[in-house]
Amino acid sequence: MSDSLRGAAVIGQSGGPTAVINQSLAGYVLEAVGQERISRVLGARHGVQGLLEDRLVDLGAEPRERIEAVAKVPAAALGSVRKKPGPEEVERMVETFRRHDIRFFFYIGGNDSAETAHIVERQAAELGWEMRCFHVPKTIDNDLRVTDHCPGYGSAARFVAHAFQGDDRDNRSLPGVKIDVVMGRHAGWLTAAGTLGRRDETDGPHLVYVPERVFDPDRFLADVAAVHERLGRCLVAVSEGIHDADGRPFLQVYAERAGSALAGQKDSHGNVQLSGTGALGDALANLVKEALPGVRVRADTFGYLQRSFPVDVSPVDAAEAREVGRAAVRAAVSGDHASGSIALRRIEGGDYRSEVFVAPLESVAKVTRNLPEEFLAGDNGIAPAFRDYALPLTGGLQPMADLELIPA
Amino acid sequence: MSDSLRGAAVIGQSGGPTAVINQSLAGYVLEAVGQERISRVLGARHGVQGLLEDRLVDLGAEPRERIEAVAKVPAAALGSVRKKPGPEEVERMVETFRRHDIRFFFYIGGNDSAETAHIVERQAAELGWEMRCFHVPKTIDNDLRVTDHCPGYGSAARFVAHAFQGDDRDNRSLPGVKIDVVMGRHAGWLTAAGTLGRRDETDGPHLVYVPERVFDPDRFLADVAAVHERLGRCLVAVSEGIHDADGRPFLQVYAERAGSALAGQKDSHGNVQLSGTGALGDALANLVKEALPGVRVRADTFGYLQRSFPVDVSPVDAAEAREVGRAAVRAAVSGDHASGSIALRRIEGGDYRSEVFVAPLESVAKVTRNLPEEFLAGDNGIAPAFRDYALPLTGGLQPMADLELIPA
Repeated sequence: MSDSLRGAAVIGQSGGPTAVINQSLAGYVLEAVGQERISRVLGARHGVQGLLEDRLVDLGAEPRERIEAVAKVPAAALGSVRKKPGPEEVERMVETFRRHDIRFFFYIGGNDSAETAHIVERQAAELGWEMRCFHVPKTIDNDLRVTDHCPGYGSAARFVAHAFQGDDRDNRSLPGVKIDVVMGRHAGWLTAAGTLGRRDETDGPHLVYVPERVFDPDRFLADVAAVHERLGRCLVAVSEGIHDADGRPFLQVYAERAGSALAGQKDSHGNVQLSGTGALGDALANLVKEALPGVRVRADTFGYLQRSFPVDVSPVDAAEAREVGRAAVRAAVSGDHASGSIALRRIEGGDYRSEVFVAPLESVAKVTRNLPEEFLAGDNGIAPAFRDYALPLTGGLQPMADLELIPA
Repeated sequence: MSDSLRGAAVIGQSGGPTAVINQSLAGYVLEAVGQERISRVLGARHGVQGLLEDRLVDLGAEPRERIEAVAKVPAAALGSVRKKPGPEEVERMVETFRRHDIRFFFYIGGNDSAETAHIVERQAAELGWEMRCFHVPKTIDNDLRVTDHCPGYGSAARFVAHAFQGDDRDNRSLPGVKIDVVMGRHAGWLTAAGTLGRRDETDGPHLVYVPERVFDPDRFLADVAAVHERLGRCLVAVSEGIHDADGRPFLQVYAERAGSALAGQKDSHGNVQLSGTGALGDALANLVKEALPGVRVRADTFGYLQRSFPVDVSPVDAAEAREVGRAAVRAAVSGDHASGSIALRRIEGGDYRSEVFVAPLESVAKVTRNLPEEFLAGDNGIAPAFRDYALPLTGGLQPMADLELIPA
């Protein structure tokens, strides 16, 4: 590994948007501009797609005020992509690197992006092109290994917590059963965040179903009936990825049972489409309507608002997203690492603080991280330990206020 | 009409939540406490239901700090109800008024609530119980007559405008066709608000469908295909109440065509359920998927977040909601009016300002107000005049920022 490696740097953004992905982009630009070893500060349009098509932009030429303005805007300012490049494609990417003398590659994304950075690193070395490859973590799903948490999660968690605070007031106001579907195909981190604004057990969500547990429709109906009996209402948080004991998505099970078009669409990979549709919420609402006739039942699916709502960003999350972008550049030019994934570590004691460190790419790639047992309570609840973990990441939440309602 | 009428006052909240309905409640309490003619400041739980069941609370005994804290919380702090009382029920309500010496009745809600206040006023008079009845306007639908706009609308419009700003970034980031369904069964005011954060024609929503126009699925598909051809993506805003030339909801038409369970549920009145379900968005997305194979198509239904999201409130809306609550009390004790609906009037010239006035209850009851022609552009767009009208009500919106994207 050469300590004197010099050349251009390029960054790409990959996967689903977050509210703070452009903070990491801004951190990269602001740290990279002026670095002695970095000759040009570039960006690729739509991630690896832009590297394949040679669609590169000169981020170093953007005025600083514009970078700061874009940092506050959700979703990928460079454009994103969902694509895992094959060997031939990586070879073409390395050609692009050679053509532009790119020696530093940064990829903002989830575990797929860490894997892409890892593949690029190995194949570039095989092709004789020395370079540094760094993964900058980003996902509202919070499902990356190694890191304490992922930039993007704190803001999405804040949005979801606020959404449940408001919907709990709505459900108190006009009582009934309300089901809210939260993003999370494999892990329940974001759904669990729905509980962060609760003051006590009368506040919703009263029931929480996550993919870390098997979803049993009959137990679900019994749970809902019990809460409705006790409180006269029931607010439910459900991850889009709930599944049966065999791992089959609930919507697929429901489809087979109902033989119904209601049960959702399959995507081009044959997976049941879980996001960008209201089918899961509607299916669950239909079950409750059948089981509790006469009860007002509604379902909402929070959808893309969770990842791209522009004005409810966690300041903690924004600062950390900025910092991981900066840290990736520092690690790349330090000469201490040929590659790595930037991770966050919580500093023990006192108020919440975090610090960054560099993890091996292969420790982050591929496998996702689920909610640990200690954050779960029974089959339908979230444990207090989760609040200690997650609340600081949201930047803090104001409790909702009630009237005393003194009888006249 | 007696100028010296004295007695207790009671307020109720009715219909769907808004983010600022409790501002009107706070305005009522803060104005009524200390009024010489008002002996007690009461509230009814769940509107007319609480008056029927004698579930009244002493709002005058609530600490002021609590009233101020509750004012910032969405949905009805007293509880709400969807109920139009019949003659026998109004008679029982008047018995409640007599029992508590209630001479002042305030009802926060939409046009149904204005009608209820009107019915109560007439029947109380027939029964020999002199009282003052005032309607305090509230609806995210903005569909009340007489008033320039309705408290509750500005905050919902702000949320929807922000939601589209964010989803437009999302759609730029991962291009495709995205359909967002916005509340509004009869009028397109809230859907139109989705356009308020746009900077130019490349920003979404690119197409807007409201109930003021006939919805033609074939024209819709042609519109979407044309935008997708031009921009490589398309963001669509659709009111939940879109319908065919005979006024039948689109979802009902689609259900009959598809013979499919996908096409939605009917409520207890036999109406197709339009809110609290993702069926309309999913049906439209399915149409587009069939018409544009291979294109990524998603739908979100913003749902109850539009009316109860707690942390994106328009400061203009909050102040006006407070003021209509205060104004109702002032009008009731002034002796100038036996009844009325509080309305807002825009003060011409200079920066946005409004003032309140009292309109006859019957001028507000029953009939709703649609978007006027001057706010519509063609069959699928919103005219610039709408922005002049609606933007001040949101409290203002920050434009999203883009990179310059200078080719490297």
